[in-house]
Amino acid sequence: MAVYTQVSAETASKLLARYDVGALVSLKGIAEGVENSNYLLETDRARFILTLYENRVDPADLPYFHNLLAHLHRAGSPVPRFIDDRNGHWLQDVNGKKACLIEFLPGISVSEPTAAQAEAVGKSLARMHVAVADFAEAKPNPLGQSSWKPLFERCDATAADGLQPGLYNDVAGECDWLETNWPEGLPLTAVHTDLFPDNVLFRGDDVGGLIDFYFACTDFRAFDLAVTHAAWCFNSDGDEFHPDVSTALIAGYLSVLKLTAEEKRAFPVLARGASLRFLLTRLYDWINTPADALVTRKDPLAFHRRLQFYRNVDSADLFGTV
Amino acid sequence: MAVYTQVSAETASKLLARYDVGALVSLKGIAEGVENSNYLLETDRARFILTLYENRVDPADLPYFHNLLAHLHRAGSPVPRFIDDRNGHWLQDVNGKKACLIEFLPGISVSEPTAAQAEAVGKSLARMHVAVADFAEAKPNPLGQSSWKPLFERCDATAADGLQPGLYNDVAGECDWLETNWPEGLPLTAVHTDLFPDNVLFRGDDVGGLIDFYFACTDFRAFDLAVTHAAWCFNSDGDEFHPDVSTALIAGYLSVLKLTAEEKRAFPVLARGASLRFLLTRLYDWINTPADALVTRKDPLAFHRRLQFYRNVDSADLFGTV
Repeated sequence: MAVYTQVSAETASKLLARYDVGALVSLKGIAEGVENSNYLLETDRARFILTLYENRVDPADLPYFHNLLAHLHRAGSPVPRFIDDRNGHWLQDVNGKKACLIEFLPGISVSEPTAAQAEAVGKSLARMHVAVADFAEAKPNPLGQSSWKPLFERCDATAADGLQPGLYNDVAGECDWLETNWPEGLPLTAVHTDLFPDNVLFRGDDVGGLIDFYFACTDFRAFDLAVTHAAWCFNSDGDEFHPDVSTALIAGYLSVLKLTAEEKRAFPVLARGASLRFLLTRLYDWINTPADALVTRKDPLAFHRRLQFYRNVDSADLFGTV
Repeated sequence: MAVYTQVSAETASKLLARYDVGALVSLKGIAEGVENSNYLLETDRARFILTLYENRVDPADLPYFHNLLAHLHRAGSPVPRFIDDRNGHWLQDVNGKKACLIEFLPGISVSEPTAAQAEAVGKSLARMHVAVADFAEAKPNPLGQSSWKPLFERCDATAADGLQPGLYNDVAGECDWLETNWPEGLPLTAVHTDLFPDNVLFRGDDVGGLIDFYFACTDFRAFDLAVTHAAWCFNSDGDEFHPDVSTALIAGYLSVLKLTAEEKRAFPVLARGASLRFLLTRLYDWINTPADALVTRKDPLAFHRRLQFYRNVDSADLFGTV
């Protein structure tokens, strides 16, 4: 949520000279994205996002993200494209960082989604899953089920219990339970796995853009819906479930793409996994980020509350109302 | 250089409903400005800057800034206007902060100004001084000459000397010297006093915008030129003077507005004052800002080097070449 690497107008102009996209008119560092430096860059012909990749994104993964977005764009999905320079290169070096010029998509990210917006997101996610059916590349999920226990083992017990007494043992038990109960054999596909409201751009109630694919990978498509469900169907503290939003999100998805009976049955388990994944990364960041650092720490307990919700629902509670 | 107060799309939409400027299309927090939170806000009709005033700007000063910019805009200066809502109000409350919707001006800020750009800035500054000749409001300069000694007395001697041995005594001597030698009776006017390259928006070599008037006040007009000179005519470290940029800046100014013989004579003293002003605020921030805080600390010594430069020039060195 900050600009880490400064890019001058002169540097941006020099970069743009490699492209056929017009001359620089405006350049603003924006507070957006995972942990990259992002600039809103305007030329006399169009607007772009200039992204400099900081530590969190492995440059070796960039071709996967590029190819996935190119595939989705060709299929008509509302995703931003990486722009090629005159020599067909989409990957550049800017101030010692890997950098890309990316299509700008207008639209606003909502903070309190309505049912209509959730339905539109469900449809968009399903359309994305349809569009990647013939996307051949695979990439293991670095934050998938097998990563959770090792990540948890790097979290300090005292610090975890300082956040909430008993949290450490509760999460340890959940890691074990999910290891035992994680489903097998569900349909795999390219998934977003981070489709929070701030990664969806709306124009009115229509989805105008799906962005920030830097956690994209191959995993269960129903896990992607479970992440989206956990991200959209609660207040941000996670202590209020919004059943109308849940029903609309699932109905939107199912109106485009049917889930198998196995996927529906496994959904509460997948949603527990989705909650644990964000609980764990937030917990790790909470413990390892100084309170006054540049990055805003997010509350891990907001996903512990979601986890508790999903422990107490069964598939019929979520799919029965659709 | 960061967003301190989060504004959701819902909050921005609610705010826009008070205005006749169209509906929200895009909202991006931008890393810009003194220490306010700034958003680039786009509607279906135009683009704006939404500014939330954080601690550094005193809300009691906002009417002065508003009136000054309105005056300049009417006079044809390229400055952003505060936008009125349907009831004629330009000052709002957003998330507990005073906030204004401000006209967006395109253009880029240069990091390494050319002589042509400096000449254009000199002209723009002089035109601004001409345009405020009939601006009636006065506001003392809170960072003017009389503020420097009290500000310096709040800086720790050991910390200052830790930055550079002998700095504390050198700056103490400069405060005393400027108190004795500060000119009197020079022409006063409304001045910007912070016209660094990042506060000027260029379209090519033309000045398309002068922004960030939150240090504007009443002071010597030649002091405003001295600040601009110190800001534009050196590399950022302050150890390289660019004589061609200096000549162009001063020539640009004088082509629009003549300075008196007293103003020219006093210029090196004013420029020492301008250097001390930024040296002191940077020194104070350096000593009192944790190294890992949200705000980037700027090097005070960059302005100590400028100060040393101005101690060794006389008026003819700067004006003789024009």
